[in-house]
Amino acid sequence: MAVTDIATRTYNHNFRLDPIVRSLLDTDFYKLLMLQMIRQVYPDVTATFALINRTKTVRLAEIVDEDELRAQLDHARTLGFAKKELIWLAGNSFYGRQKMFGPEFLAWLADFRLPAYELRKVDGQYELHFDGPWTHTTMWEIPALTIINELKSRAALRNRGRFALDIVYARAKAKLWEKVERLREMPDLVLSDFGTRRRHGFLWQRWCVEALKEGLGDRFIGTSNVLLAMDADLEAIGTNAHELPMVTAALAESDAELAQAPYRVLEHWRQHYNGNLLIALPDAFGTTAFLRNAPHWLAEWTGFRPDSAPPIPGGEQIIRWWEEQGVDPKTKLLIFSDGMDIDTIEQTYRHFHGRVRMSFGWGTNLTNDFRGCDPDGAAALEPISLVCKVIEANGRPAVKLSDNPAKATGEPAEIARYLRVFGETGRAVTPVLV
Amino acid sequence: MAVTDIATRTYNHNFRLDPIVRSLLDTDFYKLLMLQMIRQVYPDVTATFALINRTKTVRLAEIVDEDELRAQLDHARTLGFAKKELIWLAGNSFYGRQKMFGPEFLAWLADFRLPAYELRKVDGQYELHFDGPWTHTTMWEIPALTIINELKSRAALRNRGRFALDIVYARAKAKLWEKVERLREMPDLVLSDFGTRRRHGFLWQRWCVEALKEGLGDRFIGTSNVLLAMDADLEAIGTNAHELPMVTAALAESDAELAQAPYRVLEHWRQHYNGNLLIALPDAFGTTAFLRNAPHWLAEWTGFRPDSAPPIPGGEQIIRWWEEQGVDPKTKLLIFSDGMDIDTIEQTYRHFHGRVRMSFGWGTNLTNDFRGCDPDGAAALEPISLVCKVIEANGRPAVKLSDNPAKATGEPAEIARYLRVFGETGRAVTPVLV
Repeated sequence: MAVTDIATRTYNHNFRLDPIVRSLLDTDFYKLLMLQMIRQVYPDVTATFALINRTKTVRLAEIVDEDELRAQLDHARTLGFAKKELIWLAGNSFYGRQKMFGPEFLAWLADFRLPAYELRKVDGQYELHFDGPWTHTTMWEIPALTIINELKSRAALRNRGRFALDIVYARAKAKLWEKVERLREMPDLVLSDFGTRRRHGFLWQRWCVEALKEGLGDRFIGTSNVLLAMDADLEAIGTNAHELPMVTAALAESDAELAQAPYRVLEHWRQHYNGNLLIALPDAFGTTAFLRNAPHWLAEWTGFRPDSAPPIPGGEQIIRWWEEQGVDPKTKLLIFSDGMDIDTIEQTYRHFHGRVRMSFGWGTNLTNDFRGCDPDGAAALEPISLVCKVIEANGRPAVKLSDNPAKATGEPAEIARYLRVFGETGRAVTPVLV
Repeated sequence: MAVTDIATRTYNHNFRLDPIVRSLLDTDFYKLLMLQMIRQVYPDVTATFALINRTKTVRLAEIVDEDELRAQLDHARTLGFAKKELIWLAGNSFYGRQKMFGPEFLAWLADFRLPAYELRKVDGQYELHFDGPWTHTTMWEIPALTIINELKSRAALRNRGRFALDIVYARAKAKLWEKVERLREMPDLVLSDFGTRRRHGFLWQRWCVEALKEGLGDRFIGTSNVLLAMDADLEAIGTNAHELPMVTAALAESDAELAQAPYRVLEHWRQHYNGNLLIALPDAFGTTAFLRNAPHWLAEWTGFRPDSAPPIPGGEQIIRWWEEQGVDPKTKLLIFSDGMDIDTIEQTYRHFHGRVRMSFGWGTNLTNDFRGCDPDGAAALEPISLVCKVIEANGRPAVKLSDNPAKATGEPAEIARYLRVFGETGRAVTPVLV
C-alpha cells in the first residue's frame, strides 16, 4: 500500500523556494567564537568579505542563476536565531566549558540579522561583496558559500530523472562508507566534520555526519556545523580562522606592528578562551615566519592547525619548533584540515602515530565527494575551490600569504609588502583542489 | 519541513503481516503458459511439488520462523486473480500475439486459489510439499520460493539500524549499476529479468527491473514477472520449464515411452504456441541424449534455452546440432539463463557474437546480489540454491537428470533407470552457486 501524503504533495506543488540556509546556526562553530571576541575587541572595525572562486575554469555565473542566488541570499537575511537555538547556545557546554557564550553576547545575537550584500557578474564569475561592521559581515562567510555550492549542485542535477538521482546518491553513500571502513582500521584515529562550507547540500552533509557517527562512534568527535551539532547531539568543533590575523594585520600602522599582528590577536584569543580552544593557525603569513618569531607562550597552547602546508612536512616543522621550545610533542595536538581525504588521512596518521596527538578536520572530501558517482559521467558535481575571504578592514587592504602561494589573496603591492615583512622561506606551490 | 504522514505511521504501527505475495500475477510468465497447456492435455494428472534447498549448509528452518512462514503461505492462499489482472491477461498481447490466453482458461483462473500445503521441519530444513492436481500445485512453485527467500532476507536484516540498512541498499544499487554500465558496452546485447524466484524481495526486484529499463532501454526486453510486466509496461518473458518433460517422463509406461517423453511434450507445446515461444529446454535428462534423438522439426523452432551446461560448451553443442540438421545458427536463438552474471554474460556474448542470436535471462545475480553489501560483513544475505521441483506425478516418482549431476533430483533408483535410458554422455559436475 503506497500512500501518498496529499498535503505534502500539494505543499510541494506550490513551493517557490527550497531554502538552502534555514537557520543561522547552520554555520561553523568558530564563527561564533570569533564573533564573541570581535565584538569585545574590535567592535567598530569594518570589514569587507568577498567571494573568491579559485577554480577559474568553472564559470559560476553561467551555472548558477542570478535570480535564484538573490532569492537564497535574501532568504538568509530574513533569518534570526530561534529562541531554542539561543537557549541551546546558553545551556550547552562547549569544549567541556559551561557558559561559553556570555549573556550579553547572546542577547545581542537575538537581534542579529545578516547585512546587505552586493552582487554582480564579472567575466562569468559572481562578484559578491559584504561590506559593513566586521561583527556582521563575518557571519556571511559560511551561508554565502553553502548557498552557492548547493545551487551549483542543484544545477548539476537539474533535469536528471528520479532514477539517475537514485544512482548518484547510492554511489556517493557507498563511496563514503568505503572510506569509513578504512578509517575504522586506524584504531585511535579521531576526526571531525569540517565540511559545511563546501558541502554538496545540507541534507547530504547531515547524512555524512550520521554516517560518521554510526561508523566511528566516539572517534567521530563532532562537527563544525553548529546546527548539526545541536540536532545530532554532537560536539561543536572549531577554534579560529585566518580572518583574525588578516584583519589585525590590515589594521597595523607600521611594518613593525604588522610583524607582531599575528601574535597580538592570539593574545586576545587566550584572554577569551582556554584549554582545547588554544589552537593556533600558523600559516596566514607563512608558517616559517610565524614560528621564527613566535613567543614561548604559544608552545604552552594545546596545539596547531596547519592549514596550507602539505601535512607531513608542515607537521614536522611544528614538531621541530616544539622541541626547540623544550616541550614534548607527545603532549601536543596537531589538527590537519587542509583538503584531507582518506589517503592523506591514512598517510599522515601513520607518519605521526605515537609522536604527537592528532585530529583531522575532514571537509570537502567528506561532504562533497561525488567524483565518479554521476551515471552520466559529467564533471558538474566536482567540488570547486570557493572561499569567502576578508579583503579590507577599515578601508585598508587585507592579505593572506599562506604556505601555498596558490592560496594567497590580496592586492599584488600589498602581497609584496607582506612578503618583505614576513619573508618567503618555506612557501611552496601545491595545486589547490578543494 | 519534514512532514510525517500520521495516518501511514499509525497504519504501520498496527501492521501484523507485511505480505510477500500480494498478487497471483507475481509469478513467472511461463507458469501461465504451461498451466494453459496442462489444463488441456493433462487435466487429471496429480503432481507433487517439493521445496529442495541445494545449499545444505544454510539451515533454513533455523533462520526462517515457522509461524511467519505459515502466515505468508496462508496469506498467499487467500489471493485470487484481480479483475484488472484478468482483463490485462485477456487484452494484452504477449510475444506479439493477441489473445494468448483463451476465454475459458481466463474464466477458470478467476476462481483459482492456491491449494493446501504440508510443512514440517526435518533436520534443520523445511519439508514443504504441495500435493494435488498438477493444474494447481504447479502454481505454488514461484510464491513458495519468493516467500522463503524474502523471509530469509528479512531475517538477515532484522535488528539492523536504519543506517546499516541505508548502506546495504546504497551498495547494492551502486553494485547493480556498475553491471548495467558494463552491459551497455555490449551494443546489441539483449536480456530480460528472470530473477523472481530467488529475489532478495519484491520491492528490490522492482528496483532492479526499473534500473534495467532505465539503463538499457529497448535492450532490456522484459521480465518473467507477470505483475512487474503489467505494472511497468514491459514484455512478459518466458516459455516452458523442466516440469513438462519431468511429469510426462514420470507418466511413461515403459522405457521406450520414457525415451520419447521429452519430445512428446514439445509436440503438445507446438500445438499450443508458436513463434518465439518455440524454445526448447534440452537438459532435463541431459542435452547430449536430447539432441541425439531429437526430431528434425525441433531444428525449425526458434531456439533453445540451455539451462545447466556451462554456457559456452553448451551453446557450441547446440550450434553443432543445428549445423548437422542443415540450418543456419545465425537465424537461431540461444537463451542463456543458468546462474548468469555480468562476467559470464560478457564472456558468452563475446564468444558467440555474430554466430547465433542470443538473449540472456538474468536471474539471481540480478535480483539478489548483496555480496559485499552488508556493512557488518555477514554472509546471511548470500543467495542460496533453493528450488521447488515436481517429485511425483500420478504417484510415480519424477526425475531430473540435468547436464550437471549437482542439479539432479529424484530417487536414486529412478535416477539410475533414467541414466540407463538417456545415457550419461556430456554430463559434468559444476558447482551450483545459485
